[in-house]
Amino acid sequence: MIFLGGGASLEFCMIPYNFLIKKAAYLNTGVWAKKAMKEAKLFGEVVEVASSADANYTFIPKGWTVPADVDYLHITTNNTIYGTEIRKDLDVNVPLIADMSSDIFSRPIDVKKYDAIYAGAQKNLAMAGVTIVIVKDEKLGKAPREIPTMLDYRTHVDKGSMFNTPPVVPIYSALETLRWIKKNGGVEAMDKLAQQRAEIVYGEIDRNKMFKGTAVAEDRSLMNICFVMADEYKELEKDFLDFAVSKGMVGVKGHRSVGGFRASCYNAQTIEGCNALVACMKEFEAQH
Amino acid sequence: MIFLGGGASLEFCMIPYNFLIKKAAYLNTGVWAKKAMKEAKLFGEVVEVASSADANYTFIPKGWTVPADVDYLHITTNNTIYGTEIRKDLDVNVPLIADMSSDIFSRPIDVKKYDAIYAGAQKNLAMAGVTIVIVKDEKLGKAPREIPTMLDYRTHVDKGSMFNTPPVVPIYSALETLRWIKKNGGVEAMDKLAQQRAEIVYGEIDRNKMFKGTAVAEDRSLMNICFVMADEYKELEKDFLDFAVSKGMVGVKGHRSVGGFRASCYNAQTIEGCNALVACMKEFEAQH
Repeated sequence: MIFLGGGASLEFCMIPYNFLIKKAAYLNTGVWAKKAMKEAKLFGEVVEVASSADANYTFIPKGWTVPADVDYLHITTNNTIYGTEIRKDLDVNVPLIADMSSDIFSRPIDVKKYDAIYAGAQKNLAMAGVTIVIVKDEKLGKAPREIPTMLDYRTHVDKGSMFNTPPVVPIYSALETLRWIKKNGGVEAMDKLAQQRAEIVYGEIDRNKMFKGTAVAEDRSLMNICFVMADEYKELEKDFLDFAVSKGMVGVKGHRSVGGFRASCYNAQTIEGCNALVACMKEFEAQH
Repeated sequence: MIFLGGGASLEFCMIPYNFLIKKAAYLNTGVWAKKAMKEAKLFGEVVEVASSADANYTFIPKGWTVPADVDYLHITTNNTIYGTEIRKDLDVNVPLIADMSSDIFSRPIDVKKYDAIYAGAQKNLAMAGVTIVIVKDEKLGKAPREIPTMLDYRTHVDKGSMFNTPPVVPIYSALETLRWIKKNGGVEAMDKLAQQRAEIVYGEIDRNKMFKGTAVAEDRSLMNICFVMADEYKELEKDFLDFAVSKGMVGVKGHRSVGGFRASCYNAQTIEGCNALVACMKEFEAQH
């Protein structure tokens, strides 16, 4: 595991810089996946194995196949804007690389299944300013190009993340968060909590006739719970937003490309927080 | 001005990525300059206008000329390991780009003279994890290559440093430091203090027969004061180091490629700190 500065978006180009020899496959599940694909195209051929763009990314595409001759398949495990998530470690016939920026440490993962995992830290791990990358060392150094020193994962592996002065305070905050996760039962406990939170909030979304979820049920993210007003209550969107804010809800406005609301339920979110949102939805329902 | 993560070493490749069209000139004043040159060579022809490598970088080369057809001249204004510094804004016949990582905000600079200035923050500005780049917008977008989005300065200029989640806490610490600098009289006052500190420490180095400075007098850095034992006291190096440490001096060991001692005198260093080092040198002298 190495620690980098620069943000997960820098990995969008570092991954192909280091791993793309000729052709790479990408699963297009949202804006982050698209950005990653865009950068990969500078380095070789990119195959989009499947996309749910036509349905505004409301589901994770299924039933796709990966060409056997690609150097890797890239997936984005959680899609913050659309509220979808790949919560199982996929079995694929090619090396697997995953952007886990927004759901790493929310469940156990089978690290062996991935040639590379990267994650910006600012959801479940640390303050913004550090990215973690887990990489199979033996897969590095195969790409047919000269890589600038700072963009070569080998530099950071060889120097123990200290080729340059690392972002010390963000890394320290990661250490403290990892201690907190461990003390609270590890990723298994984080997973259980995530499921409890999701049951509370999705439960209310499904019960309350004024609201509806945006993602298909089987692909619902446990990290970002996205919902909108039901069609017959559409004109009340702003009213509910104001009401929620007045009840102390912070950051519940959905991304502009989806609209509605987003309840972000990262590891730090409490059951009490979820119950408060549900109480707020019930009270709004009673008023109308 | 834009704020980036990734460290100043990332700029070593971003500068040529964005500015090198065909040929660039570099002034080789030490290990940081050399690293910057190495990355530039991936993008075009690199001309070393001068070097003091043969003298272990104990001086800033003079009397060199820059080919008129280079895209820019790159300089490193302060050389932390060798204790040399370019403390004047140079007048050159080509666009000037400067790595000011270790002396920015220690003196007034004529920003107009530079097409780009970059600096890792962790000396005079902020905690590690943020780099500032000052760039002439109109000089961007001329390099004949596709630049990965995160490595293109235009991305960060256009998005006000918020294309990705920026390193918020390191940037906040920069704000607080800039407020502190302003409150204490601005860069003019920092410059005056730097000169006072340097007079105190270099004064003692020149007076005390047991020590000698490593850099030639006219190129001495005000940020990193490097000195060694005089030839006849060479065997006392470890003794002095132990003595200084016992007196509370921290980090006075010189870089292994120079040996001896290094008194880092960034903005946060106090006159009292410098006086304490001098007292320590005098006491050691009295003992021998």
